[in-house]
Amino acid sequence: MTDTGSLLAKAVGPEHVLAGDRVPEQYGHDESLTAAARRPRYVVRPGTTAEVSEILGIAGAQRVPVTARGSGTGLCGACVPGTDGIVVSFERMDRVLEIDTDNHVAVVQPGVILAELDCLTAESGLCYPVRPGESSASVGGTIATNAGGMHAVRHGVTRHHVLGVEAVLASGAIVRSGGKYVKTSTGYDLTQLLVGSEGTLALVTEAVLRLKPRAGHGATVLAPFATAEEIARAVPRLLAQGLDPLALEYVDMLTMAAMTAQEDLGLGIPRQVRDTALAYLVVVLEERSADRLEADVESLGGQLLELGADDVYVLPAAAARRLIEARERAFWASRKAGADEIVDIVVPRAVLPRLLAEADVIARDSGSIITGCGHAGDGNVHLAVFQPDGKRRDEVLARLFRAGRALGGAISGEHCIGTAKKRYFLDLEDPAKVELMRRIKQAFDPDGILNPGVLFD
Amino acid sequence: MTDTGSLLAKAVGPEHVLAGDRVPEQYGHDESLTAAARRPRYVVRPGTTAEVSEILGIAGAQRVPVTARGSGTGLCGACVPGTDGIVVSFERMDRVLEIDTDNHVAVVQPGVILAELDCLTAESGLCYPVRPGESSASVGGTIATNAGGMHAVRHGVTRHHVLGVEAVLASGAIVRSGGKYVKTSTGYDLTQLLVGSEGTLALVTEAVLRLKPRAGHGATVLAPFATAEEIARAVPRLLAQGLDPLALEYVDMLTMAAMTAQEDLGLGIPRQVRDTALAYLVVVLEERSADRLEADVESLGGQLLELGADDVYVLPAAAARRLIEARERAFWASRKAGADEIVDIVVPRAVLPRLLAEADVIARDSGSIITGCGHAGDGNVHLAVFQPDGKRRDEVLARLFRAGRALGGAISGEHCIGTAKKRYFLDLEDPAKVELMRRIKQAFDPDGILNPGVLFD
Repeated sequence: MTDTGSLLAKAVGPEHVLAGDRVPEQYGHDESLTAAARRPRYVVRPGTTAEVSEILGIAGAQRVPVTARGSGTGLCGACVPGTDGIVVSFERMDRVLEIDTDNHVAVVQPGVILAELDCLTAESGLCYPVRPGESSASVGGTIATNAGGMHAVRHGVTRHHVLGVEAVLASGAIVRSGGKYVKTSTGYDLTQLLVGSEGTLALVTEAVLRLKPRAGHGATVLAPFATAEEIARAVPRLLAQGLDPLALEYVDMLTMAAMTAQEDLGLGIPRQVRDTALAYLVVVLEERSADRLEADVESLGGQLLELGADDVYVLPAAAARRLIEARERAFWASRKAGADEIVDIVVPRAVLPRLLAEADVIARDSGSIITGCGHAGDGNVHLAVFQPDGKRRDEVLARLFRAGRALGGAISGEHCIGTAKKRYFLDLEDPAKVELMRRIKQAFDPDGILNPGVLFD
Repeated sequence: MTDTGSLLAKAVGPEHVLAGDRVPEQYGHDESLTAAARRPRYVVRPGTTAEVSEILGIAGAQRVPVTARGSGTGLCGACVPGTDGIVVSFERMDRVLEIDTDNHVAVVQPGVILAELDCLTAESGLCYPVRPGESSASVGGTIATNAGGMHAVRHGVTRHHVLGVEAVLASGAIVRSGGKYVKTSTGYDLTQLLVGSEGTLALVTEAVLRLKPRAGHGATVLAPFATAEEIARAVPRLLAQGLDPLALEYVDMLTMAAMTAQEDLGLGIPRQVRDTALAYLVVVLEERSADRLEADVESLGGQLLELGADDVYVLPAAAARRLIEARERAFWASRKAGADEIVDIVVPRAVLPRLLAEADVIARDSGSIITGCGHAGDGNVHLAVFQPDGKRRDEVLARLFRAGRALGGAISGEHCIGTAKKRYFLDLEDPAKVELMRRIKQAFDPDGILNPGVLFD
């Protein structure tokens, strides 16, 4: 062990420092399909905020890059470390410190897994309504990426639920921002700046999360449509009715086929419908009472048929659960099917049909297959790109991102930039804004030790 | 006119530059009770973003401070200009550029008045759900202060509804951030950083605002309680039931008396109740159908009685409207009654009773009167301090803010820091955070021309 290693061992205990060849492979990558894994020099597993502060002190003094790591379920390589760097893994800081039922907040450490938080909040009739597809994601990771997911159409994304953080700055200083309140106008909102900053500004060591009362009654409705474009056109009209769905997802035929093949879903859809529907809309409703839910489902069914659905299926609870789980695992289905990259462009929801039409053109032009599913209510689409040739795929991605931006959208709705999308981000973003972001980065991290190579070169 | 004046006249037209003694008194202050007015050297009224950019170019070259101004309804002196400075008044940039009914957004210029936006969105069955007390506030001003208001308990504050901005940096560069979508993970969120930054980082020249479907049916319920503490204790339990009220306000007896005296409200509350109730809870419910609303009101009434209300009054529509309007004008009622300062501390809502109890102690200790009303659902309380002696008042404020912070809260929930609360902010805030904020300020505005003296010295 070098000097750095000894200092780290002193800070967190030698049993919590892994070095060199003893670093397990998993610490070198996330779930990105394209970001190459890199083994860091050290993995340290702090147990307290004070230890995180010490680690950053050591890293700063020696100018060693630091990469924070949660569960490693990211999709853009944001936690791929530098080969000479330190991975700070939050696996030991995994406690739910408090479920505050009066203020409807949870205070948690960054290593807490969403599935566990869901179990614990359920005991109090509450829920943390952010539900990205991956329930093994850590809270810290979802804060770093501003994770979204299916419930964003009603509840918003991670940003809207992080009320406060404790964070360690590059200097080692520990700061707290926000707290157990939703509103504040007391200086710049550092909490909001840290959300989605991909570990480049500070390391979050504690978070105050907003909880909601858990609604008792839910229903899942599946509606096949002739085309994905028809779905995308129906969505704004559906939302204007005020039904306020919990989820509003579209799944194209190929993705549905991959999902059903992998999950053996018995959705009760007749073969002839399956043969003609090119896309499906999945709507989840949630209400406080069974009566209201029933009335809403009735009303939704009528609206869907008016908006062009081939039919409407109210799924039995078990089938509904399987469908939602399969949708959440759509990434894995695409990956198993051989997808070469996943993108998650966001556009104004009303122009989603135009983005999907453009994706079809790009697929044809380039001899690629592009399949999709996504958060139709939010204009956020996950496109799986099947194009093994790296250079061609690069062109496909660049064209997709340009199309999304030309439609008034952004490169990523919830996956982030990381290292995998950096090139496109830097190519397409206004240089004045990139320069401003660099200066913000500089304000937080003058020596550039926090996740260098992510977002910027 | 000096050289600066000529340049400004060339940029926006001489008829839109006011200089020296020709500057009307109103441009030198907002509605703060304590921030002294200061006449700026120039008032310029740009008509376009390009003109704003030119103005900042001129100001930057000559190192002249620039203060943005909306309607001047702020309460902390954040738009009190420097005596040698330029006020950029957005009164001419007052157009609603688009109401996009498919994406549920409005695109507006900063000078748009909330009341006007409310009228225009109503035509499409939509609403901008942020409702600070002052409907003559400009959108730009509400973005600068992250304005909140009565509907925050359901819908959140300005921050949660600003999806994107166009802004002019101190350098004169025009940047756009965000757009017609709710979720994005594409670099640092500059939009969120600008919200609540009080004109110190950039000038917002356009905003994309999130709209919601306008609910058709509303009811206002008034419940007298023996004490404000009982109300504050009832609130978390009420919210846990999941009724999701649109507003949840408390008003203490003195404030209610001032409100009713000024507004001649006929609320139908018997004298004996009025004589014993020390505080009132006002609950506004809103639902999609009359049936649901009726059921919710019924349920709410039962819950309120269980939680200790002396009685429950469902107000007739006209009385309800008058009460809400009176509550929104509570600031003016306090002012008319002779209040010397208003504070708007926010704390975790469950500890509001402790803050109110502490405020009583501080009032007694200092021989002051402290009355209050506020957003009980958000833990955000507006305390009117009656203490004419400046030094004593200063001590009262310092003690109130310290008490709020000790309870896990912040100095301001929605009014901001401005110049009037700066001293307390700088005294109480963690120096490491203030230093970080200064560096962020520096990243945006290296020469310090944007609203110097606000937030920091």
